[in-house]
Formats: sequence, C-alpha cells, structure tokens
Amino acid sequence: MTISVIPVAGLPQVQPGDLLADLLLAHASIRNGDVVVITQKVVSKAENRLEAVDPDDPLAHKAIVERESVRVLRRRGDLIVSETAHGFVCANAGVDLSNVERGQVALLPLDADRSARRIRDGIRATAGLAVGVIISDTFGRPWRRGLTDVALGCAGVAAVVDLRGTQDTYGRELLVTEVAVADEIASAAELVMGKSSGVAAAIVRGVDPAWLREGSVRAEIVRRYDEDLFR
Amino acid sequence: MTISVIPVAGLPQVQPGDLLADLLLAHASIRNGDVVVITQKVVSKAENRLEAVDPDDPLAHKAIVERESVRVLRRRGDLIVSETAHGFVCANAGVDLSNVERGQVALLPLDADRSARRIRDGIRATAGLAVGVIISDTFGRPWRRGLTDVALGCAGVAAVVDLRGTQDTYGRELLVTEVAVADEIASAAELVMGKSSGVAAAIVRGVDPAWLREGSVRAEIVRRYDEDLFR
Repeated sequence: MTISVIPVAGLPQVQPGDLLADLLLAHASIRNGDVVVITQKVVSKAENRLEAVDPDDPLAHKAIVERESVRVLRRRGDLIVSETAHGFVCANAGVDLSNVERGQVALLPLDADRSARRIRDGIRATAGLAVGVIISDTFGRPWRRGLTDVALGCAGVAAVVDLRGTQDTYGRELLVTEVAVADEIASAAELVMGKSSGVAAAIVRGVDPAWLREGSVRAEIVRRYDEDLFR
Repeated sequence: MTISVIPVAGLPQVQPGDLLADLLLAHASIRNGDVVVITQKVVSKAENRLEAVDPDDPLAHKAIVERESVRVLRRRGDLIVSETAHGFVCANAGVDLSNVERGQVALLPLDADRSARRIRDGIRATAGLAVGVIISDTFGRPWRRGLTDVALGCAGVAAVVDLRGTQDTYGRELLVTEVAVADEIASAAELVMGKSSGVAAAIVRGVDPAWLREGSVRAEIVRRYDEDLFR
C-alpha cells in the first residue's frame, strides 16, 4: 500500500489558545485513518508555552535551558545536551529561539501525548474523523551528523510496533524487531515541511490500519535512565 | 508537494551476482527524480557479503561481530554495540542472521555509497532514468526505544541538506539546521516495508529536486570519532 505525505499549507501564525484541531480541519482535507503530524513549535504556541527572554542577554536563554534540564549529559561551547523532565535527550532541553518572536523562547509541551490526544479528540468531535496525531520535533543524535524529526507525543497511532515473534521470510522467528513507527512517520512528514518553508503540519495517509491504536511516546519510546546503556 | 512512498513488491530472493538495477526496473515503475530505497540485506546478498557460520555454535556469530568491529562501545548480554570499519555505530556490527539462510550471516556492504552508485548507474544505463538510490538498514539508537531505518549509503541524492543561513518565518537567520534527509527518506520507506512482509525496496517519489545531487552517507552523515561527544 502506497503512503502519501501531504503538506498542510496555509496555516496562520498560531496564537495562544488557538484550537489546532479546527485550524487543521480548515486547511487540510483530512480523512479517516490519516495520521496528522504537527510540529512542536506550533503546539507550544497554541498552549502558550512561550517565555519572555532578554534577546540581548546571551545567558538568559542558557538559564532557561538549565532550568528545563533534569540531567546534563554533555556541554560543548554553547551546546548543552540534556535530559528533560519528559525523559527526552536533546539539545538545549528543547528550548528554542527559532520561529518565535524576538524576545521569546518556546518550551516543549508539558505532555506532548496529551497535546496529541487533545487534537485527535478535537478532530473527532468536530468532524467525526478517527485519525492519529503525532507532535514532531527536530533532534540531533550521537554518531550520525544531521538532524531528523522524531515524535514527542502521539495519540490514536502506535509509537512502537512490535514485530517480535513474526517470522522472517525464511520462517525463522525474529527475536526483536520493535519499530518506532511514530518516529519514522515524523521523519517522513519532515520531508514536506522543511525548517523555513512555513509548513508546520503534514498528513501521512495510508499507514497500516493496525497501527491506529492508542499510543504514547512517553510509555513506548522514552527509554528509562536505568535501562539506557548510553546515559 | 506531496511525497509518495510506494512499496516494490515481488522482488525474488536475490542471489550473489544479481544485478539489482535490472531487478528493480523489472518490478517497479521508476521515474526520473525518484529515490529508490533498497535494504542492506538484499544488497549484501547481491554482493555476496555472506559468510558461513555454524548455526549450532552460539559463539560463531559473536566471533564475526568482534572481527567486524573496530571499537566496542557497550556490551550487555548477547548485545554488542560497536563501531564498524565504515564508522557506523550499531548492534552486532551489522552482522545479521535474519532473512538469510540458516548457516549464513550477512555482513554490511564494504562501501554502501558505492553499492548505491552501482545501482544508480545501472538504472541510468539500462533505462535512461536519473534517480537517487539509498541503501537502508535498521538501527537502534540511545535514549529512545524502538528501531528506525537509516541510510547506509546513497547516490544521486543528498545525505544531508544544509539549511544554515536560510531565514526562519520571522526573518531571523537559522544558525544550524542540517537535516539528514537520506535517513528520513530511509525511515519513510520502512513504513511500507516492514521486517517480515518480504518487501525489500520502495520508491520515494516527489522529493525536492534540489536534493537530487551527488551525495554520500560516509562523507556527510558518518560522524568522526573525534568530533563525537558520545564515543
């Protein structure tokens, strides 16, 4: 089955309190079974996760990064790689200056799974459509250069699909194949977004219907500190 | 612009010496500007990167993993996370028992960028089509559960797209946004493949034509040991 990744063009600059479900329905032809991917920045604005920061004080941003970090893994120059209260490991605790007004920073949503559920429920309530929703963000990673989009939160779609016990094409049992489909869908969506094109959402159409179950990035993808070989 | 991710169904079990460009052209309607994603396992078989291993000796596989590793990062139980000669960091040095015949393991291609160039050149020579090619594999990562597909090699498509200097929607310069599009395309392709469905290739249609330049995973994505905060 072919999967289509469709950019959602024309979303306005989002303001605190805006109902993202209604904005998405107004700017995209959403269908049952679609997965709607929307970037964290837009969600943080709608949820008023913005904070004033003195744009002429280089330490002001850093102070917020420190506050949003529960564990600093690495520092180099201006870069801090740290773990957030959500359990995400990323640069600058996800505190971001780009694509917000000067004098503001955007913080991560308090609970991105909940943010996704709210959008999913809004689309269902307004339009009667059953969709998955993924909140995406752009993270770096060790060992490989370049950033990729990953899922911060999801609703109505699995975060991880467990293929353990499924046989390979030679009939042997695959011991461990847990695929992080929410991250892969977020990456696919990024291909039609780009950081500077002003496209902050995309529809991913045609994913395996079996994946459209209740999902949670926090429960399925976030690796516990004490289970991680690399923290 | 919408991106389509189209599974390539019906590829036969590949044998050493098979011409993958011809097999792909026979089983997919490839167009100019497409990116063809094919899994490492198929490429390793075509390139005869298979090695006999005693299936009843649990240490035989491990010995090959040790030999294919230039640096072991972590061990836990049967799992070895190590760096390969190519600079990839992955489980078991990419030495894989699944989807190969019993008594064999598949090693990574010697140079997956070159593997991709060979397929790209073959498609151009046989059909006159200009395409990108990505060799994909399934890797774990620190901090997040679940596996995602990444690019081991590419040709005719960028590995990383550099958005540095592009302005954000507020007109500020984005300082660093290097997007690993080859990894994101590999992840998108995985959504129509799955580990056990027997689909080992996909066409990704509609990517930004500016990305269809010469690319290299080794040159653009593999992070040098001495530039890595996490090795």
